[in-house]
Amino acid sequence: MNAEILCVGTELLLGDTVNTNAAFIARGLASLGIGCYYQSVVGDNAERLKQSVDLAFSRADMVITTGGLGPTYDDITKETLADCFGLEMELHPPSLEHIKAMFKRLGREFTQNNAKQAYMPKGAAIFANDRGTAPGLAIEGGGKIAIMLPGPPSEMSAMFDQKVRPFLQERTDQVFLSTTVHLFGIGESAVEAALHDAMLERTNPTIAPYAKPGEVQLRVTAAAGDEQQARKLLAPVVKEIQAMLPDYVYGVDVGDMQTALVHRLTEKRLTIAVAESCTGGGIAARMTDPPGASKALLCGVVSYSNQSKVDLLGVREETLQTHGAVSEQTAVEMARGVRNVSGADIGLSVTGIAGPDGGTQEKPVGLVYVACTGPWGEKVLALRLSRGYSDERELIRRMASLSAMNLVLRELGKL
Amino acid sequence: MNAEILCVGTELLLGDTVNTNAAFIARGLASLGIGCYYQSVVGDNAERLKQSVDLAFSRADMVITTGGLGPTYDDITKETLADCFGLEMELHPPSLEHIKAMFKRLGREFTQNNAKQAYMPKGAAIFANDRGTAPGLAIEGGGKIAIMLPGPPSEMSAMFDQKVRPFLQERTDQVFLSTTVHLFGIGESAVEAALHDAMLERTNPTIAPYAKPGEVQLRVTAAAGDEQQARKLLAPVVKEIQAMLPDYVYGVDVGDMQTALVHRLTEKRLTIAVAESCTGGGIAARMTDPPGASKALLCGVVSYSNQSKVDLLGVREETLQTHGAVSEQTAVEMARGVRNVSGADIGLSVTGIAGPDGGTQEKPVGLVYVACTGPWGEKVLALRLSRGYSDERELIRRMASLSAMNLVLRELGKL
Repeated sequence: MNAEILCVGTELLLGDTVNTNAAFIARGLASLGIGCYYQSVVGDNAERLKQSVDLAFSRADMVITTGGLGPTYDDITKETLADCFGLEMELHPPSLEHIKAMFKRLGREFTQNNAKQAYMPKGAAIFANDRGTAPGLAIEGGGKIAIMLPGPPSEMSAMFDQKVRPFLQERTDQVFLSTTVHLFGIGESAVEAALHDAMLERTNPTIAPYAKPGEVQLRVTAAAGDEQQARKLLAPVVKEIQAMLPDYVYGVDVGDMQTALVHRLTEKRLTIAVAESCTGGGIAARMTDPPGASKALLCGVVSYSNQSKVDLLGVREETLQTHGAVSEQTAVEMARGVRNVSGADIGLSVTGIAGPDGGTQEKPVGLVYVACTGPWGEKVLALRLSRGYSDERELIRRMASLSAMNLVLRELGKL
Repeated sequence: MNAEILCVGTELLLGDTVNTNAAFIARGLASLGIGCYYQSVVGDNAERLKQSVDLAFSRADMVITTGGLGPTYDDITKETLADCFGLEMELHPPSLEHIKAMFKRLGREFTQNNAKQAYMPKGAAIFANDRGTAPGLAIEGGGKIAIMLPGPPSEMSAMFDQKVRPFLQERTDQVFLSTTVHLFGIGESAVEAALHDAMLERTNPTIAPYAKPGEVQLRVTAAAGDEQQARKLLAPVVKEIQAMLPDYVYGVDVGDMQTALVHRLTEKRLTIAVAESCTGGGIAARMTDPPGASKALLCGVVSYSNQSKVDLLGVREETLQTHGAVSEQTAVEMARGVRNVSGADIGLSVTGIAGPDGGTQEKPVGLVYVACTGPWGEKVLALRLSRGYSDERELIRRMASLSAMNLVLRELGKL
């Protein structure tokens, strides 16, 4: 089975919205082993939509659309697809009830144009929308399937995972299972080189590397008759990768660096406190992303000014004068200081020059010191994160945050 | 003139990469007044790429591609497009020099396959790549234009702004100028209702509302013979919008809330310190995004644990026991505390329940208190930010951060 993704919306054509829906659905299809050779975007225009749908069905067994299911006159996806399948529209009472209840819950008045969202092609499978008014739907006929999903990403993604995935799983005979190996501190091409062609050319499980900002992920996907068999195929390959890149793998299926760190700390019943200068709260903000972060992170201090390094963290004025705010010594005193004031098991600090201004020949933009102090003693890293671009402040801040969290993860791994 | 965007890359089809390039180019085209009715994505496959290019040229005057300009055998965009225009490939020596210099600078060895990136269709206009090895290019013929850009977003966007925009501007006879009005605390549909149809249906300038997470932006775009005329068309419309929605407009062309706040503080030579609980450093991290933030933000304290609220901020234990950590009283004491310890002009604080756990009937998930204390006295807001979804932690944290910064902006506006 192969599919095409067709996203409908003028806001996409104007670039007002980034098409995260296409990527989300594409990953979902890949995980189900459904091929996808084309994605398209078209505006809220009946003629062009019709042509795009016809083209997609000439190339694929299935078309998945997003958008154009709303109440206004230019929401035409359902009507256009119903026409392709020669189906009439009829009221779907449960959907109407759902929409009315939604309006009531939000304290908004139900207007008659909203009833349009409850009219469906005859015989369609309806996917209720827990997060919005427009239901999704699927219609089948002549060996073709059309699946229509709402445009707002939060509605679409919840509906895809809860309703569309089981719908598609019933129509495929294999189970696809993926696991993700997370690597930090190594580039994508170096990962590919390390894994050799033999591994990257495997067909079951497949290994697909991809670069996220600041990290590389390897997605290992196995196809099998059932989940247990798929798991058996995955396990040795993941072990092999870990053995080949031990210095870079920081977790398997851990979501991201901050989630991995919070879990590891919670597991080991250790607490942490963070002192940040150039990252400006980025580490604390990341570490409080995962629910339950309060078990691990006691507090953070964003000591942006020198005075606050002295007042809040007890960094010595002498240290600042002799070595400067961006120095190994200041980093260490910041880490010690935040550990002291918080009573946490671990103190972590970052100080550096994120740019674009503030760099000197001796201490250029991108120079960052990371220090941590904990049950294992103290550790400091000097990082040079600039690649010479003019607008790399964000990149430097992100890499500094990730490097700091990675340092703690590494040290925890040795305990 | 109308254009189509064709993004080439298997990583897009697999959903490993979100197609931010299409949105970036789409906005660029819209700002130049170039229509765009279709976007497509196709993999690194010669036959399907050829078909997609043919289709695009059957519908549009210009095709802009991203991706497939690299050194490997499956990078085929240039060769495919050259073929469409009947052009042969030849070595472009300056590009080869550039690529070799790039390798040298990065300390990597130049391998012969990289020379492929310096072969260009005869007569192509070459766009040098400041950030990577593969140059971009444009070819013209038979009333059609093909523009080919590299896939990595940082390379593509820099090249588009610096090279492609002037190239296109020369081929259009109008100047398009946009200005963005930023609104907070009001939904997109409420903005549309407030502006009436008459305003939204204007043709010059046009007004396009679009919702960003937590805010609405109105992009006002004027077309005119030159920039000065365009500015004259924009000014009264922006004034009109500000007059119609005075409680919600927080800035014009200010980038985002944090940049607006840092600029306003710097302008007024005021300093701020931030105490955060549920936002976990998100406000400090946002406020240190813009370069030069250190002039405005002295420090931040992420007092995630109760003990750190007492130790670092001087919140009274009695207050925490009587009213709880999530209360108006605690918020006020946090704001006062961080102002005291930092000596800043303004203290800003947030305490709340971001969920998913920790909510009670009396204090549900989404209840957030924001307090600020400054030259104008004290101000506290109680916010209820939950919409009842299961995974809205991120949304609550973001809205709490934005609401807090907006509160300070409002107060500064009254000075």
